[in-house]
Amino acid sequence: VTTRPPADVGMPLAEIDTPALVVDLDAYEQNLDRMAASLAGTPVRLRGHAKTHKSPVVALHQIARGAVGACCQKVSEAEAMVYGGVRNVLVSNELVGARKIARLVALARQADVAVCVDDPGNVRDLDAAARAFGVRLPVLVEIDVGNVRCGVAPGEPAVTLARHVEAQPGLRFAGLQAYYGRAQHINEVDKRRAAIEGCIADVRQTIDLLKRQGLACETVSGAGTGSYRWEAASGVFTEVQAGSYCFMDVEYGLVEGFPREFTQSLFVLATVMSRPAPERAVVDAGLKALSVDKGMPRVHGLPDVEYQRASDEHGILHVGDAGRGLRLGDQVWLVPGHCDPTINLYDWYVAVRGGRVEALWPITARGAVL
Amino acid sequence: VTTRPPADVGMPLAEIDTPALVVDLDAYEQNLDRMAASLAGTPVRLRGHAKTHKSPVVALHQIARGAVGACCQKVSEAEAMVYGGVRNVLVSNELVGARKIARLVALARQADVAVCVDDPGNVRDLDAAARAFGVRLPVLVEIDVGNVRCGVAPGEPAVTLARHVEAQPGLRFAGLQAYYGRAQHINEVDKRRAAIEGCIADVRQTIDLLKRQGLACETVSGAGTGSYRWEAASGVFTEVQAGSYCFMDVEYGLVEGFPREFTQSLFVLATVMSRPAPERAVVDAGLKALSVDKGMPRVHGLPDVEYQRASDEHGILHVGDAGRGLRLGDQVWLVPGHCDPTINLYDWYVAVRGGRVEALWPITARGAVL
Repeated sequence: VTTRPPADVGMPLAEIDTPALVVDLDAYEQNLDRMAASLAGTPVRLRGHAKTHKSPVVALHQIARGAVGACCQKVSEAEAMVYGGVRNVLVSNELVGARKIARLVALARQADVAVCVDDPGNVRDLDAAARAFGVRLPVLVEIDVGNVRCGVAPGEPAVTLARHVEAQPGLRFAGLQAYYGRAQHINEVDKRRAAIEGCIADVRQTIDLLKRQGLACETVSGAGTGSYRWEAASGVFTEVQAGSYCFMDVEYGLVEGFPREFTQSLFVLATVMSRPAPERAVVDAGLKALSVDKGMPRVHGLPDVEYQRASDEHGILHVGDAGRGLRLGDQVWLVPGHCDPTINLYDWYVAVRGGRVEALWPITARGAVL
Repeated sequence: VTTRPPADVGMPLAEIDTPALVVDLDAYEQNLDRMAASLAGTPVRLRGHAKTHKSPVVALHQIARGAVGACCQKVSEAEAMVYGGVRNVLVSNELVGARKIARLVALARQADVAVCVDDPGNVRDLDAAARAFGVRLPVLVEIDVGNVRCGVAPGEPAVTLARHVEAQPGLRFAGLQAYYGRAQHINEVDKRRAAIEGCIADVRQTIDLLKRQGLACETVSGAGTGSYRWEAASGVFTEVQAGSYCFMDVEYGLVEGFPREFTQSLFVLATVMSRPAPERAVVDAGLKALSVDKGMPRVHGLPDVEYQRASDEHGILHVGDAGRGLRLGDQVWLVPGHCDPTINLYDWYVAVRGGRVEALWPITARGAVL
C-alpha cells in the first residue's frame, strides 16, 4: 500500500505531519545546477543514479540539465524510470535469473536499456532472452577497480568477457562499468584521489587492450559524488553515475574536498513527542524513518542537541544546556546519516520552498528490490 | 506504489524472485501456538506488537489464538490494523500533533482504541479532540521502567498524571504502559531477569499508589519476546506486547533462556548474482532488503558462508572452503539481523510450506510512520 503523503501542497512547514522526507528545493536545484555546470562543455555526461533518488521526477530534472539518462541497480527500478518518462537507462549491475532477465529485455523494447555483466554464463542467458524478444541488448563489462564486490579483473579477463559478449547475436558490447564506491567516502582528499587514479589506470589499460582486439568502448561509466571530477577529467570515462550529490547526507558531509560544493537539501522532519527530562527529548523518527547503517542522523540548526540512539520508532536526543528550550511538539530537522536507504523508506518527497510545501513527488521506485 | 509480489501462490521455492521476505509457515504457526500455550489458563492476554509484523493478517492469526487485540506505535499503523479487521488496538506510544490526534479519536469511533501519555499538555489536547469527536478515549499512563525513552517516573509522577487524565471528561484512565525494551536483549538470563524484576517492582508500587487514590488499573501492558514470561507471571501485568516471537532474528537468536522456545520463521531469500572469486559471492540483498542496525544477517544452512558487509543493493559473502560449491544463481536463505525494520522494507510476505508458496500476505502497515 502506498502511504498517504504527510502534507498538502501550499501548507506552511509547521503543518507538515512527521516523520516526513523533505527536500529544500533551493538547495536541491543548486546542487543539480552545480553538477551540470561542472560537466558542461566536456564530453562527459551525467547519468544520475536512481538507487539514490528512486523517483523519475528527479531523473527528469537531471536530464533537463544535460544528463544522458538514469542509472539503476535493479530491473524494477529501471521499469519505474522508463514508465516515469526516462528514455535511457543503464542497469549498472548484474541481473541473474530468468524472471529478471525477461523483464530487462522486454523493457529494452520500450526504451534504451543496457546492463552489466561479469560472468560468461550470465552473458549466454542474456543473449537467449534478447533473441527471444527480438532485441539487441547493449552490454557493459563490469571491472573491479577496487570495490571488491562484483566485476571481473581489469585487463585480459575483461577483454575475454567482452569478446564473449560481442560473439552473441542478441548482445552488443557497449563498454565498461567501473565504479569504485568504496573510494567515495575516503575522507582524506589525497588518499581518495590516489584510489581513483588507480581505478583510472585500470580502465585505461583495459580500454587499450580492447582496442587492440578491435573492440571500442562507446561507454565507460562509473564515479560517485566523492570523486566524479577526477573520473570526468580522466579522458577515459564518458559518464558519471553520481547520485547522492543532489541531496547529500551526514556521511558525505564528513568527506574532505569537492563534495563540499553540494549543500544538504534532504531532511527528515521529525517532531518532539516526549520531553521526559531536561537533557532528553524523544522524536518520532527512528529506524523506520532513517537508515542508521552509516551512523546516526545529525540535528540541523539546533545548538547543543544530538541524536544519540534510534529504536524502531523513536529517536533519543541528548539536549545540552543551550538546547533546553526544545519543547513537546517542536519540529526538528534531521540530516540522514545515509541518504539512499533513508529515501527508500518513503513514498513521498515533500518539496518545500519559501516556508511552504511546493510539491509532493512520488517515490515510485521505493521498495523496488527485484 | 505497492511493489508487485515476488512470487505466485503454488510456485516452488526455486521460482521465487529475490530478494523476497519469506515466512516458513510451519515454524511461524508453531511460534504462535507456543506463545498462546504459555499464556493459556492465565489472566494475561497477548497483545502482539504490529510494529514488528505490520500486517493485520498476522494480528488476526494472533487474535484467533487468544490475543486481546493488537499493539501499535503509530496512528497510521492503528488505521491499517482496524481497516484490516482488528477490533481492539492500543497505541503503546505518545501521539503528538493535531493531525495525529484527530485521526486517533476519529478511529476510536470505529474500533476500541487506546493511547499512552506522558505529558499533561498532551492529555489536554487528547481530551479536546475526543470531546470534539464525541468519544471517551481510554488512556494509559506510560511509566519509564528503565528504558530511558518516553514515560513519566513510576510512583507519584504517574499518579499525578493519571489523576489529570481521569479529570478530563473526554478521557478515561485505563491503566499503565510499562515496556522495558532495552531489557529484552540482555543476553544473560539472570541479568535480564533482574532488570525485569525491577520493572515489576516499579509497576507494583505505582498500582498500589493509584489504588489509594481510588484509581484502578484495568490494563497493565508491556513485555517483549525476551522477558514476557516474567511479566506474565508477575500478577500485575494484564497484557504482553511481544512482537518478534512470531518471526525471530539474529539478535534474539543470541539471547539466552526462554526466547529459545521460538524458532526462526522469517528469512530474506536472496540469489547469488556474482561469484567473482572462490572466497567471495555477492547476493542481491543489501541495505534496502535487510536492516543492519543490529548487525549483519546470518546465512542459514550453508556451512562456512558468512554475510560480511552490505552495500545499498549487494551483500558480500565470505565463502570458506566448505562452501565453495555455491554457484551463480543459487538461492541463499538469510536470517535478518533485526526483524522489525527489515519487514518494513517489504510490501509482501511470501508464506511457504512443503516446498511451495502457500500464500502472499500484504504488509499494509509497511511505511506507516505517521
